[in-house]
Amino acid sequence: MSSQLRRDAETIINDSIREVQPDSAVIRALEETPLSGRIRLVAVGKAAWQMAKAASEWLGDRLEKGIVVTKYGHVQGELPRVECCEGGHPVPDEGSFSGTRKALELTKELTGEDTVLFLLSGGGSALFELPLIPPEELQDLTRQLLACGADIVEINTLRKRLSAVKGGRFAQHCAPARVFSIILSDILGDPPDMIASGPCCPDSSTCGEALEIVRRYRLSLSDEALRLLKEETPKTLSNAQWKITGSVRELCAAAARSCQRLGYEPVFLTDQLCCQAREAGSMMASILRTHAGEGKKSAFLAGGETVVRLTGSGKGGRNQELALAAAAGIDGLENAALFSVGSDGTDGPTDAAGGFADGTTCRRLREQGISIEQVLQDNDAYHALQRTGGLIFTGPTGTNVNDVAVGLLTGTAENAQD
Amino acid sequence: MSSQLRRDAETIINDSIREVQPDSAVIRALEETPLSGRIRLVAVGKAAWQMAKAASEWLGDRLEKGIVVTKYGHVQGELPRVECCEGGHPVPDEGSFSGTRKALELTKELTGEDTVLFLLSGGGSALFELPLIPPEELQDLTRQLLACGADIVEINTLRKRLSAVKGGRFAQHCAPARVFSIILSDILGDPPDMIASGPCCPDSSTCGEALEIVRRYRLSLSDEALRLLKEETPKTLSNAQWKITGSVRELCAAAARSCQRLGYEPVFLTDQLCCQAREAGSMMASILRTHAGEGKKSAFLAGGETVVRLTGSGKGGRNQELALAAAAGIDGLENAALFSVGSDGTDGPTDAAGGFADGTTCRRLREQGISIEQVLQDNDAYHALQRTGGLIFTGPTGTNVNDVAVGLLTGTAENAQD
Repeated sequence: MSSQLRRDAETIINDSIREVQPDSAVIRALEETPLSGRIRLVAVGKAAWQMAKAASEWLGDRLEKGIVVTKYGHVQGELPRVECCEGGHPVPDEGSFSGTRKALELTKELTGEDTVLFLLSGGGSALFELPLIPPEELQDLTRQLLACGADIVEINTLRKRLSAVKGGRFAQHCAPARVFSIILSDILGDPPDMIASGPCCPDSSTCGEALEIVRRYRLSLSDEALRLLKEETPKTLSNAQWKITGSVRELCAAAARSCQRLGYEPVFLTDQLCCQAREAGSMMASILRTHAGEGKKSAFLAGGETVVRLTGSGKGGRNQELALAAAAGIDGLENAALFSVGSDGTDGPTDAAGGFADGTTCRRLREQGISIEQVLQDNDAYHALQRTGGLIFTGPTGTNVNDVAVGLLTGTAENAQD
Repeated sequence: MSSQLRRDAETIINDSIREVQPDSAVIRALEETPLSGRIRLVAVGKAAWQMAKAASEWLGDRLEKGIVVTKYGHVQGELPRVECCEGGHPVPDEGSFSGTRKALELTKELTGEDTVLFLLSGGGSALFELPLIPPEELQDLTRQLLACGADIVEINTLRKRLSAVKGGRFAQHCAPARVFSIILSDILGDPPDMIASGPCCPDSSTCGEALEIVRRYRLSLSDEALRLLKEETPKTLSNAQWKITGSVRELCAAAARSCQRLGYEPVFLTDQLCCQAREAGSMMASILRTHAGEGKKSAFLAGGETVVRLTGSGKGGRNQELALAAAAGIDGLENAALFSVGSDGTDGPTDAAGGFADGTTCRRLREQGISIEQVLQDNDAYHALQRTGGLIFTGPTGTNVNDVAVGLLTGTAENAQD
């Protein structure tokens, strides 16, 4: 029953997770924004090596020189014309500073004919850093800020001014060369000057705000640090351009493209799902039930991160719970199915990535004496889906851009059969 | 702020509730299916008079004769060429039987040139009835069935065979005249032979099933009743045609048309919403947030009936709770609003029909020291919406086809201003 729907689900899952891999994201961004002239590469963050490898293969001889600054143990081999350095994360260390110094060296005295390709991924905040005050003083300041409950925006407002590269200063250093950043961020809607404190983006915080934070929290600072806090960060950067990639929005877009290739008309609902998993499943099912009779092959997509309300002590995850709740709502529909999957390949404390349900799931559970309502009450979706072949396994995927849930409708019940 | 969005919401609410009124539904159905020849009208149910009045005005002189059988006190005046009778509901009485007898009289010995327009609304089961056994025996049988836990399908399977008009027999009586039924039903997906036991629809139940029910529940029946149970109801009715109207699907369709007239591109999500009100609000808000930046004027529609999870003892209703939950999700969006409204004009135990929220609602509550999360915990949406001018009042509407929630996005923030 519905094995075509199940196969389509597997295809969509594989396609979409592959497309949000750091290397695919880099190539897609490079395809969309052709770079001209001589290119120097600076890649920082935990995915720096993987991103640099993709860019270096794509650029070929056009890549003059490059540098990777990544976390210890993350360099996976040599790259032509690219020096690979490792440093400390989450606390920056001499490795981070030396890598950052080399990046500044590589990008100094460039001309307007040059382009710097800046690849930024998670961990960039610690790995790409060169403090203008002694590192111990910076660490002490961070400790003071955390102790008095300052938020991340306040902490960054100070740190940007105490760094040679943050707060837009790296792009300023590269000028007049053009700087094109490809930023891998899993946080949708994060402003670019917040990601790793924005080395290549105009800074929206001001010196006034920085001094106000010092006053508010009665911070103890050296004279040199105080002097630096009064030096303004760049507010415009005419040489900088960036593309933020790797978000759940791209996961949804990739899933939509895959649906389209399989002949489904995609309807993109949201990439900001944040309600209860089982209620999202119910609502997705009500959408499928409403459109099931239209005779169209369509796919409804919702990305984000739902929450599980714990009412029992079973085994499961938010994606499995969403799929199982939807199973109750599409019970008996021969041409409907729904899956939900975590892009990192791990849904809750289980070895499954998510769950799949179709119009037969509920009946098959009923025949085994299992009530979906009770299973949800017990938070035990894993074992219920296990009995209906509804667990989805991908293994660790190397990326984490939240979840995507897709409801599929084949035009007619016949299409769903195999 | 956003008063244009609020005005649009009022327009959509008024338009859509007007269109699902019984008289509008009758006229729309008549426009879609032109009737030819001489027309006789039989209108039964609680909305019979209102429906007959609309039909009589639309048909004018083409209406030869007609009869209304409605509940006591529901005839609101005289109608030209239409006799108005009243009867008992929910228990049929001599008034029901006599009205039904007159309807049979009015439609006997017709020819293939004639058309019977049959208007059916809620209560038709009791009001349109002529038992083939003594009424007391029928009442006794119904009591027996209810006592032993028989369901409504089982009860109807017997009652259809003990009635002169149910189970398709009225349409059979009218043959060879054509019978066109306009059926007002608020239950989506109800099979037509179940609504008032389907006087004008082929019956899907069988004599075998009827006798099995007698056996299963060891019912005590007269010989005459037993003989009647062996007489098969019509399985095909080539002279019958019907249109079911007045469902929440039409409420949604009417709202979508109104959105379109106001320049919004409607996206019809579902008419089978049944999840928790606040979670539906959260998911609707996540859809709005996702599409808010697209610069398109669009409307997302969801109909159905959500449920409220009682966690407090405040004042509110499911529509108010949905709207308030959405307010948290669209906080700060200048071009977004959402409303949810019950088509009967009454949301929960309140005098409001529903609630309206926009991107300023959350901030305005915050400024008054009110947290939406807390209000939802207290189930006190009424008072929160009262403080933001977010209560929607329609008064009693004369119809009840569930609820509709609509999320609105104007293309740009500017459009939302007044």
